[in-house]
Amino acid sequence: MTELLYLEDLAAGQTFATRTATVTADAIKAFAAQFDPQPFHLDDAAASESRFGRLIASGWHTGAISMRLLVEGEMRIAGGLIGLGGDLAWPRPTYPGDTLRVESEILEIRVSESKPDRGVVTVRNRTLNQHGDVVQLAIVKILVPRRPPP
Amino acid sequence: MTELLYLEDLAAGQTFATRTATVTADAIKAFAAQFDPQPFHLDDAAASESRFGRLIASGWHTGAISMRLLVEGEMRIAGGLIGLGGDLAWPRPTYPGDTLRVESEILEIRVSESKPDRGVVTVRNRTLNQHGDVVQLAIVKILVPRRPPP
Repeated sequence: MTELLYLEDLAAGQTFATRTATVTADAIKAFAAQFDPQPFHLDDAAASESRFGRLIASGWHTGAISMRLLVEGEMRIAGGLIGLGGDLAWPRPTYPGDTLRVESEILEIRVSESKPDRGVVTVRNRTLNQHGDVVQLAIVKILVPRRPPP
Repeated sequence: MTELLYLEDLAAGQTFATRTATVTADAIKAFAAQFDPQPFHLDDAAASESRFGRLIASGWHTGAISMRLLVEGEMRIAGGLIGLGGDLAWPRPTYPGDTLRVESEILEIRVSESKPDRGVVTVRNRTLNQHGDVVQLAIVKILVPRRPPP
């Protein structure tokens, strides 16, 4: 069991890893049927005629898989991983069979002025495929509690 | 059938609506079990002891539902809704029973310099609940083709 991290445990430059997850064509189609029903996410034949040339995962699917990896990864924040928002980019698609992982780096730490029991931490989460290509770059702000007084 | 939109059909200030979707507690838990397995998304009792005080949807679930609404909404872009990335914020949680819809506004249109057959359009997508509260604010860049020559 990884120890839970409080604001005092974090510093700019720290990095955290996750396990990997392999994305199947069936998973890509199932997510798309529920949340992003566009031909290039749903159907191999239609995808081959799209600008992508083959089936690709919804960006929201890549994001959701990344979240799963983060929740189970090394960066165990006390109180959970609570994102306030951030900047998101999908520089390359996720394809069937891709094996994804997330590398996180702490960029900035700010104690809240209005609520001194917590802080806002800026984290860069890069989701990488098996070739080391970035399929999602997320610079996010997360809420991190300070360690309670003993 | 809504007519497909090309770059020439878009102008800053245009707005587009979607239908609504109601989010059930079961859907929140099912999404969380797959993609964001944290207590405040998975279990009513655990959520009542969290900082949120009750069950809330994963932000990625709110994002995925918003995508579904957009794909089926009024803003039918030729070639599909292809997001390159953007800024994302979750100002308030989505709760069980909330009814969401998305309001979109075109903010900026730029023809690609390197690829003159397309442009990048900046869109503000606001996901609203039944009270008119914004549960997701997404300023996204999407790829939009120019109308092909006749």
